[in-house]
Amino acid sequence: MKKNYLFTPGPTMVPQEVLLAEATPLIHHRTAAFSAIMEEAARGLKMLFGTEQDVYMITGSGTAAMEAAVANVCSPGDKVLFAGGGKFAERWGELAHAFRCNVVEIPVEWGKSLTVEQVRAALKAHPDARALYITQSETSTGALTDVQAVAALTRKTNVLLGVDSITGIGVHPFRFDEWGVDIAVSGSQKGCMTPPGLSFIAVSPRTWKAVEACTSPRYYLDLTAMKKSWSKTTTPFTAAISLIRGLRTALKMIQEEGLDQVHARHARLAGAVRAAVKALGLRLVAEHPVNGVTAVWGPEGMDTEKLIKLLASKYGVTIAEGQDDLKGKVFRIGHMGYVGEADMLVAIGSLERALKELGHRFDFGAGVRAAMTALGDTENGEGS
Amino acid sequence: MKKNYLFTPGPTMVPQEVLLAEATPLIHHRTAAFSAIMEEAARGLKMLFGTEQDVYMITGSGTAAMEAAVANVCSPGDKVLFAGGGKFAERWGELAHAFRCNVVEIPVEWGKSLTVEQVRAALKAHPDARALYITQSETSTGALTDVQAVAALTRKTNVLLGVDSITGIGVHPFRFDEWGVDIAVSGSQKGCMTPPGLSFIAVSPRTWKAVEACTSPRYYLDLTAMKKSWSKTTTPFTAAISLIRGLRTALKMIQEEGLDQVHARHARLAGAVRAAVKALGLRLVAEHPVNGVTAVWGPEGMDTEKLIKLLASKYGVTIAEGQDDLKGKVFRIGHMGYVGEADMLVAIGSLERALKELGHRFDFGAGVRAAMTALGDTENGEGS
Repeated sequence: MKKNYLFTPGPTMVPQEVLLAEATPLIHHRTAAFSAIMEEAARGLKMLFGTEQDVYMITGSGTAAMEAAVANVCSPGDKVLFAGGGKFAERWGELAHAFRCNVVEIPVEWGKSLTVEQVRAALKAHPDARALYITQSETSTGALTDVQAVAALTRKTNVLLGVDSITGIGVHPFRFDEWGVDIAVSGSQKGCMTPPGLSFIAVSPRTWKAVEACTSPRYYLDLTAMKKSWSKTTTPFTAAISLIRGLRTALKMIQEEGLDQVHARHARLAGAVRAAVKALGLRLVAEHPVNGVTAVWGPEGMDTEKLIKLLASKYGVTIAEGQDDLKGKVFRIGHMGYVGEADMLVAIGSLERALKELGHRFDFGAGVRAAMTALGDTENGEGS
Repeated sequence: MKKNYLFTPGPTMVPQEVLLAEATPLIHHRTAAFSAIMEEAARGLKMLFGTEQDVYMITGSGTAAMEAAVANVCSPGDKVLFAGGGKFAERWGELAHAFRCNVVEIPVEWGKSLTVEQVRAALKAHPDARALYITQSETSTGALTDVQAVAALTRKTNVLLGVDSITGIGVHPFRFDEWGVDIAVSGSQKGCMTPPGLSFIAVSPRTWKAVEACTSPRYYLDLTAMKKSWSKTTTPFTAAISLIRGLRTALKMIQEEGLDQVHARHARLAGAVRAAVKALGLRLVAEHPVNGVTAVWGPEGMDTEKLIKLLASKYGVTIAEGQDDLKGKVFRIGHMGYVGEADMLVAIGSLERALKELGHRFDFGAGVRAAMTALGDTENGEGS
């Protein structure tokens, strides 16, 4: 027998309650019964996004919502700013290129976070930009961006702020309205504890003016069609009925735990992993790490792909590899969504066993001990 | 207790085996284990599409695949032909408009089918068209288009043939390669007996040249990215893991029944419904009806929305209303996917009970009798 554990930064482990909600017999999507389900899910999403605006559900992966955030706002030739710094940050640039925008990158070294100074300088140099796209939680490096600080600058300008919070929502606090974010996107298979296939988008009142003026072609991802349909509590095209049912159940679980508690749990789990990594003599990739995933440089000379394969094959623990330039050098442990404290012992203990087998020299057990100490400290209100 | 029956033309009833396959714990999408699942599902789709070409799975509803079929092929200003005749047929025109094409409609009256003569004339008048988009099974009217006959004409020209077979695949025979179709799309929640959220697209070798030359912006639905990823048996963006697992199970069930038998079953069910409708003194909307859904004119003076509501509330039978201009005048019974002969007795018997309650005068029981007779006849090889 081998039990399997999924510590990847999406998909994440899904509660059996959610999976079984998805396994109930299909109902039609143009019915009052399904509208009621969608309405409940949408209320949960509004809580997670921190907004009174509608949050639209798209049948598609997170990238579909990112495309909606660009294609409905930016016209060909529009100047578009984006912050680099990771595989997903760069996706904003690729999208803006695909839609023939005049793309300006704010360069960020992988592992570093966009600074307020960089944003201030970019807004000063490009006051004519249509939008600035940033990434709250960069899944490839585990680096966190201070969305509130960036929004404090953009909201005073005409530059709209689009935020990828695909691995941020449900992990880190997000206050769409209060911070003054203009467009935010997320996905189902991360903090929302649901299988992949759904993505979400919130749009600020001032963004709608840009949407009306936008000449980029779009149909499936047309925000105006979503808004029109949502006024009748439905979607322009057939909704992913079973996934939305699962989502509703997952969001109810989040609500029952309490959103503040959910955020605090993620901070606790991340703290435990960081303490363990340090105790094992390893280094984080990110200078300012996120709470949903921890990217770690492998031990000197060790191919991290080997480590990841061993963890999966021998210990049933799936973690993620480094992406693009980080492939073979980095491993990433996901701890977002349906993850508890005990799960961290599984992840870190198994990591120690595999590291030892591959020849890394360290105080065996030090990782688990450090994690448990960190968890105990935060429980007692002593940790950070 | 009220048991519920879903006789809508998508979503359709989903076998419990499929729902439970979706309810298994999540695995990561970039693993050999998931690639093996996708490969098996893709083999099943190739059988349904009748092609040796790859069939790509898109996380999105059927319209996402339709957009991919336009946005990857047609550039702004390209002349694009489409056949009208229903809500979904018109979607091709809307998509081509959205992508700034020079759109030419081949007008088809709702309920009628596109004729070979119309296609011949359109190809003669517009030999410079990039593509012709048609609808095999028009879900809003229940009208069937002879795709083979249309393809026999387009394949001799430079005009690419795109086919919406969203409610066709798995119901009617489809021979992508043999007929010479260039692009075909379908969805999960129809003949494929899976919840909504996935769509599929097949692309002919000669279409790839158009894809390379196409200047329309696209990213999430970019076919070239799908092709590149599929060469490594993966998807460009996170796949809808649970839905693809369900799909694999559903396609295995179709394979076990035998595709010819599946098509024959749909013909049998459709024949039974048509016989019943006639026996109740009602008329079909479609001149050449499809086998997956039957659209019926309501009795003179009866608001079909009332009928549909009564069927759902009192009898637990969900059928679909008329769309756009047909709203209130038409009802549609879906009989595609996981539907057996006995299900037709439920649908037609309940329809009779509701019709009687609303004052329609007819020989009570005649519908069920006609359906059973038709089923018996075809079983004995006497029917059509």
